[in-house]
Amino acid sequence: MSRRTTQRGPRDERGVLAARILSVARTAFSEDGWAGTTIRSIARQADVDPALIYHYFGSKESLLDACTTVPQDFLDRIADTWAAPRDQLGERLVALTLENWESTDSGPVLRAILLIAAHEAGTRAKLRNLVANALMGPADIGQGEAERGRRSGFIASQLLGLGLMRYVWEIEPVASMNAAEVIAAVGPTIQRYVNGELSPSSSATVDG
Amino acid sequence: MSRRTTQRGPRDERGVLAARILSVARTAFSEDGWAGTTIRSIARQADVDPALIYHYFGSKESLLDACTTVPQDFLDRIADTWAAPRDQLGERLVALTLENWESTDSGPVLRAILLIAAHEAGTRAKLRNLVANALMGPADIGQGEAERGRRSGFIASQLLGLGLMRYVWEIEPVASMNAAEVIAAVGPTIQRYVNGELSPSSSATVDG
Repeated sequence: MSRRTTQRGPRDERGVLAARILSVARTAFSEDGWAGTTIRSIARQADVDPALIYHYFGSKESLLDACTTVPQDFLDRIADTWAAPRDQLGERLVALTLENWESTDSGPVLRAILLIAAHEAGTRAKLRNLVANALMGPADIGQGEAERGRRSGFIASQLLGLGLMRYVWEIEPVASMNAAEVIAAVGPTIQRYVNGELSPSSSATVDG
Repeated sequence: MSRRTTQRGPRDERGVLAARILSVARTAFSEDGWAGTTIRSIARQADVDPALIYHYFGSKESLLDACTTVPQDFLDRIADTWAAPRDQLGERLVALTLENWESTDSGPVLRAILLIAAHEAGTRAKLRNLVANALMGPADIGQGEAERGRRSGFIASQLLGLGLMRYVWEIEPVASMNAAEVIAAVGPTIQRYVNGELSPSSSATVDG
């Protein structure tokens, strides 16, 4: 576990060091805020020279961007899930949400985006884009962009709230419940947001 | 709007200054983190002497506690809502959530609790307590504490996620949708978490 064992060559070392810098940066930006975080403080916690961070990432802005960018694999899995039969989408999307949070690749990125978006406008725009495009991009649900946006928004409100409860705030019993129980409870919510009735006017046909 | 107009007497002045300190503290703890916030920095932003903050609140810990304590009125409104007919609870709880976030009394406190709970253990315990007791305290739903806890957790996952989408991350169209649309869309979700079927075993009775 000594650092030396990871230094097998320039490329490996770069990957290891970059990953360590990103991990430290995510926590720093999330907990100390954009304004309260400096390249110097990240360098100190990651045990690297500040110049290396500038060399790898260019600037504090680019470092923030890098540490809040979801892996391509994450986007691919979302696209795959939307290819499932429509009546399975609710449960499949909840299952995918749990997998994504539990993944060491995408979990820390999701956490960082949600926490940093609360105070940093650029990350908020990124979250907005993720919800509007990546999360719902592959879906052909809803009639037109407006309805698609509404359904996307409600799906995100439930799935992001679930992720925070279970993995960030760690509130029991949701935090420790097994995946099957969570999928059974939340799947129907998401299924309704995908293709159920959402508007109040349907139950009573109002006309003028 | 000058500060002088608020200084009508010692009691009024104390209320005004305390409210200003709490407001600044909520933003500071949320955006700069617990570790990154000092009484001195709050005093500077609130334009008061640090000694006044110690005089009013005693310590940084007590100040955090004060600025993340929900108003009694908020708890009373929750209790009132749970007294509604059971089949109206879904819509009533969503409507209450929107009111609470839009209230200048409880909205900033909710925001502060959710953001600070992400990195500060004491506030996380407070959020946990709020979900387990205050949010569901007046309710007699579920058979026993375990089921009650599960239902409470799922209700919170949706209502807290909705609050963040609409009021903190401000993601459209959910952020600007009118209240009736949000209540129509999310009410049935909450209604099902209150008294609908949540477990997977009901649709197929598995026995050994």
